[in-house]
Amino acid sequence: MTSHMPPGFTGSSIDRADRLRLDETELSQLAGSYRARLLRLAGHDPVLDETGRLGWDSMADHGAEEMIFLGLDGDTPLFAPLGPVETGRPAWSLFGLLGQMEPKDAALWGAARSLIEWHNRHGFCPRCGSATVPFRAGWGRRCSACGTEHFPRVDPVVIILAEHEGRVLVGRQPQYPPRRYSALAGFIEPGESLEEAVARELAEEAGIAVGNVRYVASQPWPFPGQLMIACLAEAESDAITLDTNELEHAMWVDRAGVEAALRGDAAAPFEPPPPYAIAYTLLTRWLGEDTEPLAPSLSPL
Amino acid sequence: MTSHMPPGFTGSSIDRADRLRLDETELSQLAGSYRARLLRLAGHDPVLDETGRLGWDSMADHGAEEMIFLGLDGDTPLFAPLGPVETGRPAWSLFGLLGQMEPKDAALWGAARSLIEWHNRHGFCPRCGSATVPFRAGWGRRCSACGTEHFPRVDPVVIILAEHEGRVLVGRQPQYPPRRYSALAGFIEPGESLEEAVARELAEEAGIAVGNVRYVASQPWPFPGQLMIACLAEAESDAITLDTNELEHAMWVDRAGVEAALRGDAAAPFEPPPPYAIAYTLLTRWLGEDTEPLAPSLSPL
Repeated sequence: MTSHMPPGFTGSSIDRADRLRLDETELSQLAGSYRARLLRLAGHDPVLDETGRLGWDSMADHGAEEMIFLGLDGDTPLFAPLGPVETGRPAWSLFGLLGQMEPKDAALWGAARSLIEWHNRHGFCPRCGSATVPFRAGWGRRCSACGTEHFPRVDPVVIILAEHEGRVLVGRQPQYPPRRYSALAGFIEPGESLEEAVARELAEEAGIAVGNVRYVASQPWPFPGQLMIACLAEAESDAITLDTNELEHAMWVDRAGVEAALRGDAAAPFEPPPPYAIAYTLLTRWLGEDTEPLAPSLSPL
Repeated sequence: MTSHMPPGFTGSSIDRADRLRLDETELSQLAGSYRARLLRLAGHDPVLDETGRLGWDSMADHGAEEMIFLGLDGDTPLFAPLGPVETGRPAWSLFGLLGQMEPKDAALWGAARSLIEWHNRHGFCPRCGSATVPFRAGWGRRCSACGTEHFPRVDPVVIILAEHEGRVLVGRQPQYPPRRYSALAGFIEPGESLEEAVARELAEEAGIAVGNVRYVASQPWPFPGQLMIACLAEAESDAITLDTNELEHAMWVDRAGVEAALRGDAAAPFEPPPPYAIAYTLLTRWLGEDTEPLAPSLSPL
């Protein structure tokens, strides 16, 4: 196999050191160390330093605010601040920034962002309605009344490139930038495998029946906290019945069209998603597949 | 490829009919239809009829209680009752029942169980602490005060068989039945791909470094609502450093040992997980692989 570019938001390579999250003594020593660093943020967004890398502050500049212990980068303990932040859609300028960040920096910031947003949306216990407080070094919250422990939510999503006779299906949501098309995607529901979710999403959004679902790659998506599971699937026909509640338009694109899109040609049939989105990874892997066939499926569908 | 037995809790094959979930008029017509059926439950557990299939009641036998619309089985609308149920670990007798159920029945019941438990754990809004009420035909809850919409939680989990020179790693948790061993597993955290979660879990629980992570299959697990993502991974060495907070014991087992375990030999080195657990699927697929090599990895690790 040729080596592939890893999906965006992966590769942070720090040690998350789960073993230390409940060790209050060790954690307070790490937080008090001169080596400890606190992630610099503007709202939810990263603040880069003059070299283009993630900005970090020394812990001494900060008071006793709540923190998340992100892990150890070698012998450097890394923390992120926990506190109320405005929620909402990320600014378009953030997406420009992400295109310039080192992948490992984007991954580390993405983990922090997902955790911070989860805390801000979980100040109360869904079981009893009382206030919750952080525990496990920011990797959980505990109810102050009933004691129930809550853990950060990760929502699995399937994102699929359906194939039919040398073409792939891309779709467009109304809020996308002009000319942008991407792979179809949807949340995995309770009681379904990822292969079943793939089949349901393509049937719902495009009226297309698929088989031979093949896993390709995965990435965490920090807006606010999805696990994107990218697959290829074989469509039984190319007749599209669009769900206009979900998609503005969908179309089949051949190899030359996808190549033109990824090259950024002005005459390409669409503008692709940014390289840090796993839909971009899917498109590049599908192109690679033409010269180097994908393995047979291990999936039950 | 040979055809594989699908993982447990998959294959319900009903139409979930997401398009109808917000259509109050159509839903109340479906609920009022003489064909409509309500899933029979004892607490969270299924109640089988005299033929061993899932038991269903007519809707007429029930009052105006809250319901989940499970979907359409042909032209039969299927519902499940929503109401307070004791939570806790499933009874061992349930696991006996699951071994006898038709796979499609187990899948349908599993989806209902996950949803019911989610409702019972989410009576309050985690954002503001006020009471929530069901909406979307039981596929969500809405806050009665701030209006925030909440959707059923699905927690992605990696479950991994590490391989090293013809042997695989199985581990035992203290609460398992006697002699039971299974594949190692752990929740995927915010900010990591499934390949990164695989590497972290094996490092944490067994002190083992892995590469070449390969996706095998997935299943929904209804205790209470996980998405199990099953993978194989290559271990760099067979030296185990056990995390005794997680596992009581772990060991490497060769092909003959896994075959004996799956046959149920009294002299096998361990008792395998039940066939409806995806760890069982992983063990059977690994055995199959010896005669029919797995495809090269598409994973970034």
